[in-house]
Amino acid sequence: MAIVAINMVPLGMGPSVSKYVAAAEKVIVNRPGIKRELGPMFTTLEGDLDEIIQAIREMQEAVFETGVDRVITTIKIDDRRDKKATMQEKLASVNAKLAE
Amino acid sequence: MAIVAINMVPLGMGPSVSKYVAAAEKVIVNRPGIKRELGPMFTTLEGDLDEIIQAIREMQEAVFETGVDRVITTIKIDDRRDKKATMQEKLASVNAKLAE
Amino acid sequence: MAIVAINMVPLGMGPSVSKYVAAAEKVIVNRPGIKRELGPMFTTLEGDLDEIIQAIREMQEAVFETGVDRVITTIKIDDRRDKKATMQEKLASVNAKLAE
Amino acid sequence: MAIVAINMVPLGMGPSVSKYVAAAEKVIVNRPGIKRELGPMFTTLEGDLDEIIQAIREMQEAVFETGVDRVITTIKIDDRRDKKATMQEKLASVNAKLAE
Repeated sequence: MAIVAINMVPLGMGPSVSKYVAAAEKVIVNRPGIKRELGPMFTTLEGDLDEIIQAIREMQEAVFETGVDRVITTIKIDDRRDKKATMQEKLASVNAKLAE
Repeated sequence: MAIVAINMVPLGMGPSVSKYVAAAEKVIVNRPGIKRELGPMFTTLEGDLDEIIQAIREMQEAVFETGVDRVITTIKIDDRRDKKATMQEKLASVNAKLAE
Repeated sequence: MAIVAINMVPLGMGPSVSKYVAAAEKVIVNRPGIKRELGPMFTTLEGDLDEIIQAIREMQEAVFETGVDRVITTIKIDDRRDKKATMQEKLASVNAKLAE
Repeated sequence: MAIVAINMVPLGMGPSVSKYVAAAEKVIVNRPGIKRELGPMFTTLEGDLDEIIQAIREMQEAVFETGVDRVITTIKIDDRRDKKATMQEKLASVNAKLAE
């Protein structure tokens, strides 16, 4: 189980890029086995790392299919093997300590 | 106005780091002039870029004050000058296109 | 052809991590079809994107095999389809403009 | 002493961006107190963290001054307080272990 944050920036398509972000998001919305949280800078995914990486590759190709020539993709992977950490548990753990 | 995602990883303090993340978050919770969204991988901030950078420096020092020797900080800045883009507007723009 | 920067941070193994970085680098040194440039913060790879992603997965597993429980991996992909851009061409292009 | 990797992506200016990268680099070339290493994905800087952050802000403004409306900046900071780690020492430490 891994938690993966992803950001894609299409180059050469004007300062507004939500249309291209949406094209990528359509690949991952309701994708079986992968939880998704859309954020203002990153979309965060939770699930099997190799399935997530496969989905990211499809998200990239979906952006190229809109006519974009160059895409800068930033990925941050939190892969933990000593325990199964979910997005919710990470948030709850920090919030609990903030409440102390 | 900028939108800034930040992630801090303290090195050498065990695989669980929420205690150190919380120490950094305490600096930014309810900080005047800066909107904050805690996420599973990044905390996203919205406000004046230089005020946000000042807050990030204080967040870093708060982590060092817990006894950490080394901190890896990842920052992603979306600075737009043609229009005032908020976190909510970015999300709404993508969600609207997803609903089409 | 893509250019990919990668950084791996093992958590819970002390502030010095070069031993774990080296374990990952051993996977990619002299790997056929992938050019490699070791930098102070990122290792930059050049080649077929899917081959590079496969290599990155092996690099991650090599770090886990040293006994690490948690690895934070940051990846930045520059994937360009309008022309074949190499690491050297990107550097030469910037340096040429710096010399103007 | 910190080591900081920085990448800037101007949005809306075509797929080729070396002209804008060069505008930012001009701010940091031969800057007193800051060592610089230009890489294919990141420029890596070494020096006092607050001086580096000030330089980064000037690099961002230099890109806006070329007429760009939106800039995505990715920054990765390695700040170590238990010993003074330079770019060269980090590389030497990994290369030494690769040679074992």
